[in-house]
Amino acid sequence: MKRRELLTAGGASVLGVAALTSTVRAEESITWKMVTSWPKGAPGVGTSAQRLADHINAMSQGRLQVKVYGAGELVPPFEVSDAVQQGTAEIAHSTPYYGAGKNPVYHFFTTIPFGLDASEYEAWLLEGGGQALWDEVYAERGLKGFYVGSSGLQAGGWFNKEVNEVSDFKGLKMRIAGLGGQALRQLGVNAVLLPPGEIFQAMQTGAVDAAEWVGPWNDLAFGLHKVAKYYYLPAFHEPGPALEAVVNREAFEALPDDLRAIVQAAARATAIDSNAEFRYNNIIALERLLADGVQVRDFSDQIIKALHDALQPILAEVRASSPLAEQVYDSYMAFLQQAVQYSIRMESVMFQQRALVFG
Amino acid sequence: MKRRELLTAGGASVLGVAALTSTVRAEESITWKMVTSWPKGAPGVGTSAQRLADHINAMSQGRLQVKVYGAGELVPPFEVSDAVQQGTAEIAHSTPYYGAGKNPVYHFFTTIPFGLDASEYEAWLLEGGGQALWDEVYAERGLKGFYVGSSGLQAGGWFNKEVNEVSDFKGLKMRIAGLGGQALRQLGVNAVLLPPGEIFQAMQTGAVDAAEWVGPWNDLAFGLHKVAKYYYLPAFHEPGPALEAVVNREAFEALPDDLRAIVQAAARATAIDSNAEFRYNNIIALERLLADGVQVRDFSDQIIKALHDALQPILAEVRASSPLAEQVYDSYMAFLQQAVQYSIRMESVMFQQRALVFG
Repeated sequence: MKRRELLTAGGASVLGVAALTSTVRAEESITWKMVTSWPKGAPGVGTSAQRLADHINAMSQGRLQVKVYGAGELVPPFEVSDAVQQGTAEIAHSTPYYGAGKNPVYHFFTTIPFGLDASEYEAWLLEGGGQALWDEVYAERGLKGFYVGSSGLQAGGWFNKEVNEVSDFKGLKMRIAGLGGQALRQLGVNAVLLPPGEIFQAMQTGAVDAAEWVGPWNDLAFGLHKVAKYYYLPAFHEPGPALEAVVNREAFEALPDDLRAIVQAAARATAIDSNAEFRYNNIIALERLLADGVQVRDFSDQIIKALHDALQPILAEVRASSPLAEQVYDSYMAFLQQAVQYSIRMESVMFQQRALVFG
Repeated sequence: MKRRELLTAGGASVLGVAALTSTVRAEESITWKMVTSWPKGAPGVGTSAQRLADHINAMSQGRLQVKVYGAGELVPPFEVSDAVQQGTAEIAHSTPYYGAGKNPVYHFFTTIPFGLDASEYEAWLLEGGGQALWDEVYAERGLKGFYVGSSGLQAGGWFNKEVNEVSDFKGLKMRIAGLGGQALRQLGVNAVLLPPGEIFQAMQTGAVDAAEWVGPWNDLAFGLHKVAKYYYLPAFHEPGPALEAVVNREAFEALPDDLRAIVQAAARATAIDSNAEFRYNNIIALERLLADGVQVRDFSDQIIKALHDALQPILAEVRASSPLAEQVYDSYMAFLQQAVQYSIRMESVMFQQRALVFG
């Protein structure tokens, strides 16, 4: 029943204002379009988007109805936050650094090389002031971002020859995106950005010598182990990329209190779901890759140090890009320094002790 | 407005059945008592209980009203799940292994020595079949458990002298609970269980030589660094203790669909909140402890191997306790084996690389 029908119905006034409001609320249904940067149902990322919509729809009993659109259905994959800004859609599922061309500080809300892992990022975001800074950054575009999980520590990439020293990178042609690619360029790598669908063939034909995609689960699905001999683990460049739900601030604020609470909690519930999905499948997939004879390597200390050095002027430029970027950088880096000290005395030791007893 | 008043109000029939139902639903309010194993508002655990209640209350707009009771207010801390089983309360916030006296397999749903860390446990629980096994275990008592976060990797404990070899444990009097205490007993430790409020004094007076409590955040709050010289990190015995919300299955199933969805998502949202709270505060607290001159040590390889050996007959006994315990053990251990292989090639390497570049 619509508000109009109710108001004109004879005798409705006996219900009093309170009941009237409740009825109208229960009957009203708001529809939100969710545009996404991924093909519908794509493993990990597309499933995360659908889960977020499902949580909201179930908890609101359809009072807030979210309909998911795959990449390109309404808008291209890298323009989803623009669509939300303009009001073409109310919500997007994506990752902040897809908008880094607009503002390089967005990198900090996805991941940065040698940065926080997923659980450390959650700590900084939810307890260490990160969310308030993110809100300030996105408010410039009338947006609000919610964390909806992480794809976890990424793989370093597939290589058709070993890289033992910094000099081995010289002239190497590699598919790699973002700040990691920028750091590798300083070491003489010809870093190129191929669309996902072209990575396999480029490795197979030798058009590139190396390529990074996501992690064991998604890499296995792409068949990259069939066209490269060495798997470098882990990534230096993406310790825990965050996924986001980005909403139009006006549309969000127009929601009644309970629906705002539902959107917020749905995002957090989705974060646990997605973290678990990526972690589980990556663990299973790595075992399969190892059973398949994949040669795992890690980057040498010399290479790691050179990459970290190469990164410093790049990050300094991000920091210098705006006063707000400086605040984000300083807050993130202060916590990172503490997190590094913690993890090397805690998680890192535990993992080695477990490996000792489990062989 | 109550259903009775509405039904007797003249003219109400013009609204039709649909609107009537909606009105009644919006007006009905269900109250749940939440009993907890912690003092109200206790850092990390008490705050997690309150957050879960807040999420449910806000999202349901009070249609499901959860009221939190601290330990001892309605029932003693270790009897909360009994209270839920008997219907004295509808929901409890606790941790599964507090009921291990009833069924030793409960340990697997909190944590076991050398077991899964928090994010691996989430992966096993939500994607690897763990939740279905937990449901089966708890169904025996008419209960259903929801994961609501982890206090993270624990500390090994505070010692007033160094333990370098297995023989150093002989005759040591230590406050330590659970399976860790049982393993240490095999090494000659006099493992005792003191209530939290007595740990500080027992260390100060020398009544015990060593004591474990939680992790840096909660240990710092207890002032344990003032009465012990060496801080052994990390714990071998609790890699990621899980917190639970345990509900009366009948009360849960009596809820309408949307409130069931709200309880489930509220638990997951609380999990992210609590993980972040523990992680953030532990990181900050460890820095303070180090600045305060605390001497951090880790257990030697010899000790770790001896503890793992000592643990095997204890875990075998848990496995043999019931056919369902056997299923839980086998499922958990199969995933743990894979998780160990993954973490040693991924997270462990990343933490060391970060420590290398950040000094």
